[in-house]
Amino acid sequence: MKIRELALLIEGTIEGDDNVDITDLSGIESAGSGDLTFASDEDKLGLAETSQTACILTTRTSRKSTKPLIRVNNPKLAFLIAYNAFHKKASLPSFIHPLASIASSAVLGKNVRIEAYVSIEDDVVIGNHTTIASGCVIKAKSRLGESCRLGPRVVLHEGVILKNNVVLHSGVIVGDDGFGYVRDRGDIYKFPQLGTVVIEDNVEVGANSTIDRGSLGCTIIGAGTKIDNLCHIAHNVKIGKNVIMAAQCGIAGSSVIGDNVTMSGQVAVTDNVTVGRNVSIGGKSAVIGHIKDNAVVWGIPARDVGRTKKQMAVLSWLTQNFNGLSKLIRAQDQDKDRS
Amino acid sequence: MKIRELALLIEGTIEGDDNVDITDLSGIESAGSGDLTFASDEDKLGLAETSQTACILTTRTSRKSTKPLIRVNNPKLAFLIAYNAFHKKASLPSFIHPLASIASSAVLGKNVRIEAYVSIEDDVVIGNHTTIASGCVIKAKSRLGESCRLGPRVVLHEGVILKNNVVLHSGVIVGDDGFGYVRDRGDIYKFPQLGTVVIEDNVEVGANSTIDRGSLGCTIIGAGTKIDNLCHIAHNVKIGKNVIMAAQCGIAGSSVIGDNVTMSGQVAVTDNVTVGRNVSIGGKSAVIGHIKDNAVVWGIPARDVGRTKKQMAVLSWLTQNFNGLSKLIRAQDQDKDRS
Amino acid sequence: MKIRELALLIEGTIEGDDNVDITDLSGIESAGSGDLTFASDEDKLGLAETSQTACILTTRTSRKSTKPLIRVNNPKLAFLIAYNAFHKKASLPSFIHPLASIASSAVLGKNVRIEAYVSIEDDVVIGNHTTIASGCVIKAKSRLGESCRLGPRVVLHEGVILKNNVVLHSGVIVGDDGFGYVRDRGDIYKFPQLGTVVIEDNVEVGANSTIDRGSLGCTIIGAGTKIDNLCHIAHNVKIGKNVIMAAQCGIAGSSVIGDNVTMSGQVAVTDNVTVGRNVSIGGKSAVIGHIKDNAVVWGIPARDVGRTKKQMAVLSWLTQNFNGLSKLIRAQDQDKDRS
Repeated sequence: MKIRELALLIEGTIEGDDNVDITDLSGIESAGSGDLTFASDEDKLGLAETSQTACILTTRTSRKSTKPLIRVNNPKLAFLIAYNAFHKKASLPSFIHPLASIASSAVLGKNVRIEAYVSIEDDVVIGNHTTIASGCVIKAKSRLGESCRLGPRVVLHEGVILKNNVVLHSGVIVGDDGFGYVRDRGDIYKFPQLGTVVIEDNVEVGANSTIDRGSLGCTIIGAGTKIDNLCHIAHNVKIGKNVIMAAQCGIAGSSVIGDNVTMSGQVAVTDNVTVGRNVSIGGKSAVIGHIKDNAVVWGIPARDVGRTKKQMAVLSWLTQNFNGLSKLIRAQDQDKDRS
Repeated sequence: MKIRELALLIEGTIEGDDNVDITDLSGIESAGSGDLTFASDEDKLGLAETSQTACILTTRTSRKSTKPLIRVNNPKLAFLIAYNAFHKKASLPSFIHPLASIASSAVLGKNVRIEAYVSIEDDVVIGNHTTIASGCVIKAKSRLGESCRLGPRVVLHEGVILKNNVVLHSGVIVGDDGFGYVRDRGDIYKFPQLGTVVIEDNVEVGANSTIDRGSLGCTIIGAGTKIDNLCHIAHNVKIGKNVIMAAQCGIAGSSVIGDNVTMSGQVAVTDNVTVGRNVSIGGKSAVIGHIKDNAVVWGIPARDVGRTKKQMAVLSWLTQNFNGLSKLIRAQDQDKDRS
Repeated sequence: MKIRELALLIEGTIEGDDNVDITDLSGIESAGSGDLTFASDEDKLGLAETSQTACILTTRTSRKSTKPLIRVNNPKLAFLIAYNAFHKKASLPSFIHPLASIASSAVLGKNVRIEAYVSIEDDVVIGNHTTIASGCVIKAKSRLGESCRLGPRVVLHEGVILKNNVVLHSGVIVGDDGFGYVRDRGDIYKFPQLGTVVIEDNVEVGANSTIDRGSLGCTIIGAGTKIDNLCHIAHNVKIGKNVIMAAQCGIAGSSVIGDNVTMSGQVAVTDNVTVGRNVSIGGKSAVIGHIKDNAVVWGIPARDVGRTKKQMAVLSWLTQNFNGLSKLIRAQDQDKDRS
């Protein structure tokens, strides 16, 4: 493909030779001659120039280059669009493996793919174009929409609902019992865990994450939300739309996460709190109370990120100036003793 | 069911019309007319009153209401008992799926249920009424007691022992190798991991949690203990009875957790420490030393919760008063320079 | 075996009766008469002396004992060597279970073992003496070297490469999609995740850990590295050789971990940072920037361990002396008000 054609596709402006052939796309590290790569900042642009890359996708405002450039608003996004044009992922052929176990009462859509050792139980409904990889277990009455993709060894418990284009990666478990007990005079009683889970359109959940069913109501994952590996979503949690949650986060029971929230890795959110819309939560934070819309928080407990950083700086300064500080206080104590 | 009958079952006192019919039970959010709900505090009672609920389970001491009340000692526990009376969970029928693989030397009790693609190896013993969901792998010589329930895709490694009424949710792995290595002159040697795991009566373990086998001795989970999702129990850990451990906790090698301990989510306990009986550990704490019986701890490292909160308050105050503090210390330094 | 023979094997010096028979090896707690045990310090030596043990492996420099001793440089390592001499682990017999599903284009080495319900897809290559336990899913074009050992229910995604002697414990997932998205005007686009994973010789990965494929390049786990349970390795991470990573650690995208690094449990490393060689990272640390070779760090954020401990001590001291401190500052404020 000529870079002219590519520039059209991604609404970019060429700077330099517009007649170059692009044979593939790749990251800067491995860019060969004929490859297109992308550079979102000046450092990356410098790196890209030292590679064999044929052409660099970069911002509208970055400096000029010795290499042909295509200037776009968002180089990473443009790269992604170009990449998908070059590498149209062939959809897996539809088939039903003879070693799958499918209840006769299950209803399968058109063009589904069901791999080996999949167990599909009574009254399950599976939408058109949905693919279910080896070793998945779909318990009774679950309903999967269209074009869902379940990786190997996913478990859907009874009555779970996936809407359309939901991607669950390997080992994900949806709809297992929530963790609800009542302690009474030394004994522990299990609270009913009889709700369900609804996962809306275009959600993606990472490997080995777990999403528990509601106790009496529903656990809900909003449309467009992306959850990374090894995350834990407890019973009755409501996660909004277009949330991005990095790996190993845990959301405790009945908490509500607003639309467009971004969470870095290993964040914990306690039970029964509300995190507002557009909130950004730094890595390893502990959210122990409500968080307002648009807040940027970090820390244990999670507070405004500026405040947390200032506290860290103050503690650091006090530690460096500890001798003076302790003398002052001791001097005051001696004054008190003398008087 | 009349609320009169229900009140008898849960040892409650009716306040208001005792002739109302209860058709179902539900959480406050979804309570319809005819439903019974519960309210453990005044806020919840207010919420319940605005719903269509027919009757509210509440405490002995809460205020009066416009709705019929049943007063009990523990509304959540009473709700649970009533719920179970209404919704008797039918036990799954016993059968052995033709697509299970069961070694001829395995010994199966009466009324067991073994679903599709389960692999049961040599000399395994399975007690009466135990159910094993699709995709479980039970390695040689494991012994499961009566009325155990294994969710889909559980793995029991060689020689693991489950006593009675043990519930292991989907993806739980019991008895895999502990993480024991010896570094010597740049090389790493694997220490033997040849002990086993014993899980006592009425234990419940959440989805995708892992419990490693002992190195030379046993890893033990005490009777009645409840462990949430994605927890890690290392080799030779001894967990007491009736412990409640929330999601994503990790207990390092050979540590001992006393009876009735409660841990919130994402707690870490270092190796070779003892946590006393009845200890309560706040979320995301790092336990790096022994903890006495009955302590309530929080923090990194975990200390008395009052002390941790006071430290946080002091740091916050110092940060707000940082200008004054730094002037004082700088003034002192100047005095010193002048003298 | 006489302790004379044993001492030869482990290059130890006998102190006391050199004619004792050793019938087995065990930990101190369960050491019976005829057993050899080991004691790495004086406390353990005292414990061992009160057991029935026939002989104690200990250091070159520890005190004398009433029991026969074998003195060695590293008692734990010597115990391990002796243990392996006593307990030669029989390798599992090679076979291919009739209930495995193996693509005709897959190439299997000699003496492989493939258990029930294993799915091996097109063009997979499996080296000699490799064993694959029940329920594993090996997607197309993966290549496994010699003498690898996959526990039950491991997933290898398309094109993943394992070199020789790689051990993946139960539930490990290698090569699932990395977590890469581009937010643009409210929408979220998935970035290509089309690289792969290379796991070098002698690596061991714990139960339910996840290692994502590179986005455009490779995720690499260096030779000899040991990773514990429930760890998360993101896309394009490069982990060096002989790294030891305890349970529930998470390494974010594109970070580099140097050779011989040791990480305690629940450590988080942010994306795009470099941790130098021989670094030691304390439990629950958050690494948010580059770390130099040979550093010993702890904390959130991770800093030199001495500095972190000093900060903790200072905050503790300030909290204890808070009354004096607040009086000083208030007095100064009053001075200011008066002037």
